[in-house]
Amino acid sequence: MNNIDLDKLLAGNRRALAKAITLVESKLDTHREQAQDVLEQVLPHSGNSIRVGITGVPGVGKSTFIEAFGLYLIEQGKRVAVLAVDPSSPIAGGSILGDKTRMEELSRREEAFIRPSPSEGALGGVAQKTRETMLLCEAAGYDVILVETVGVGQSEYQVAGMVDFFMVLMLPGGGDELQGIKKGIMELADALVINKADGDSENLAQLARQQYTSAMNLLRHTSFWTPRVMTCSALKQINIDAIWGMVVEYYFRALDEGGFYQKRAQQNRDWLHQLINEMLLLKLSRSAEVKQLLPVLEQEVEADRKTAYTAAREIIALL
Amino acid sequence: MNNIDLDKLLAGNRRALAKAITLVESKLDTHREQAQDVLEQVLPHSGNSIRVGITGVPGVGKSTFIEAFGLYLIEQGKRVAVLAVDPSSPIAGGSILGDKTRMEELSRREEAFIRPSPSEGALGGVAQKTRETMLLCEAAGYDVILVETVGVGQSEYQVAGMVDFFMVLMLPGGGDELQGIKKGIMELADALVINKADGDSENLAQLARQQYTSAMNLLRHTSFWTPRVMTCSALKQINIDAIWGMVVEYYFRALDEGGFYQKRAQQNRDWLHQLINEMLLLKLSRSAEVKQLLPVLEQEVEADRKTAYTAAREIIALL
Repeated sequence: MNNIDLDKLLAGNRRALAKAITLVESKLDTHREQAQDVLEQVLPHSGNSIRVGITGVPGVGKSTFIEAFGLYLIEQGKRVAVLAVDPSSPIAGGSILGDKTRMEELSRREEAFIRPSPSEGALGGVAQKTRETMLLCEAAGYDVILVETVGVGQSEYQVAGMVDFFMVLMLPGGGDELQGIKKGIMELADALVINKADGDSENLAQLARQQYTSAMNLLRHTSFWTPRVMTCSALKQINIDAIWGMVVEYYFRALDEGGFYQKRAQQNRDWLHQLINEMLLLKLSRSAEVKQLLPVLEQEVEADRKTAYTAAREIIALL
Repeated sequence: MNNIDLDKLLAGNRRALAKAITLVESKLDTHREQAQDVLEQVLPHSGNSIRVGITGVPGVGKSTFIEAFGLYLIEQGKRVAVLAVDPSSPIAGGSILGDKTRMEELSRREEAFIRPSPSEGALGGVAQKTRETMLLCEAAGYDVILVETVGVGQSEYQVAGMVDFFMVLMLPGGGDELQGIKKGIMELADALVINKADGDSENLAQLARQQYTSAMNLLRHTSFWTPRVMTCSALKQINIDAIWGMVVEYYFRALDEGGFYQKRAQQNRDWLHQLINEMLLLKLSRSAEVKQLLPVLEQEVEADRKTAYTAAREIIALL
């Protein structure tokens, strides 16, 4: 791999950025070292963006929303990067056609940078790669980073843990069990956005909005921000501006209340501890003895033939 | 510490049970070894109970509920053990008077065994001690284990992770932000039980029930069980039988659908991995070098002066 031209990257050169991301995504140990060098150097230039996480079930219109949202942001003079945390990419729903096909108009814009989800992540999972890619994009001068996930497994938690604002796209027709809110999502969402609020679905969307608003109000909110429920139509570009307005309002209130950088610092800290944890477990799982013993002990513990404590001690003793 | 008389414990002798629990709660390493021996021996005799977790904010009437519920269960011919996971005991709310004072009538019954929360837990926290105490109580023939928590910090997750059925007590007057559902709790609850549904509060309780039911229905439920919302009055002993009926219904349906033992096996497995994790982190944190370096690295990472990956590597390198 060639050396990364940092000056070009910092000047916003797309090729230099793409090369740096490829380095970050590489699984080779030597590349990993190099990538960390690059990241250390860009760190002082990173952080100057608003990071927005976006999730929603397949069919909710995520790509259409991101395209409309991104184009609106560009109109406002922003540079926009679109990243994805998708643990099952490229097989899962939204990503199957490739991100650039999904967001055709946005991908042609000079002010937009769209990077498909890394196909696999080593340590820290794809989320780790996406976090690092985010730093590179910030250093390259992108003002808004949109991090998308299809919401498989833990990916929503991972994305919520790396962004400033996390929104969940919903379909009109709330209250209907088929598209209920995934458990735990209310805990993460700064906003629920009901998409496809146009034509025949408009009334349904307003009804859903009322229902979700009541449901959200039943939750205890400890932060300065009470999650909002909004409607929009990405297709007809209705209310896209209001959604950005909400994000900006959140941003300034978070800055005012002192919670903005505090949240980022906490996210960094959590990420550090998660990585330490994963590295420890990785070290453990690479041991041939552990590989042999752990499945046996798991069975013993599952069947109540051994206590978890004793089994855990046996594993640790192998270190 | 004297040896534990296993035969007596298995025959349901309270003194033998209490002694075994004291052994389990001891922090001495030699006692820890002995305790694991005892646990290994009781394991084949454990598991024959319904484990019910109960949480709720201070003032919701948890003690009154557990007293009424426990006495009702005894009437039904059950033997009942009441345990607590209370990370901040004995200072926090409910426990201040001691568990036996709180549940005076229940504590006098031969068929009930009430054990206050261990004052502190080493590895695995107090939850670890409570899990082990639960096994001892089952071996001593208790049919229903009620595990109570005041819901501080992670204790609700810990309790939900060790019981078959998890219920959250609520006050009438839902919709009101003051006593909204703690974030994340909807994910854990198999039932919300609105207590104090008597006298003037009855209408309010029914209204709250409707609101919480709507909110719960907006959640996607993957399991065979859709969380219920019920009302009761522990003080007037109204609907206590219906709540037990619900738990029994859950139990039989879980057995039917094959989910009952599967859930317990999964809980055991999760517990094993949690302990391995904690033991690893403990080992790490005991290192003098880590103690010195970690706070420095945390600051660097929080302030974006170093990437989490590099910092994590530096910590792991000390092992």
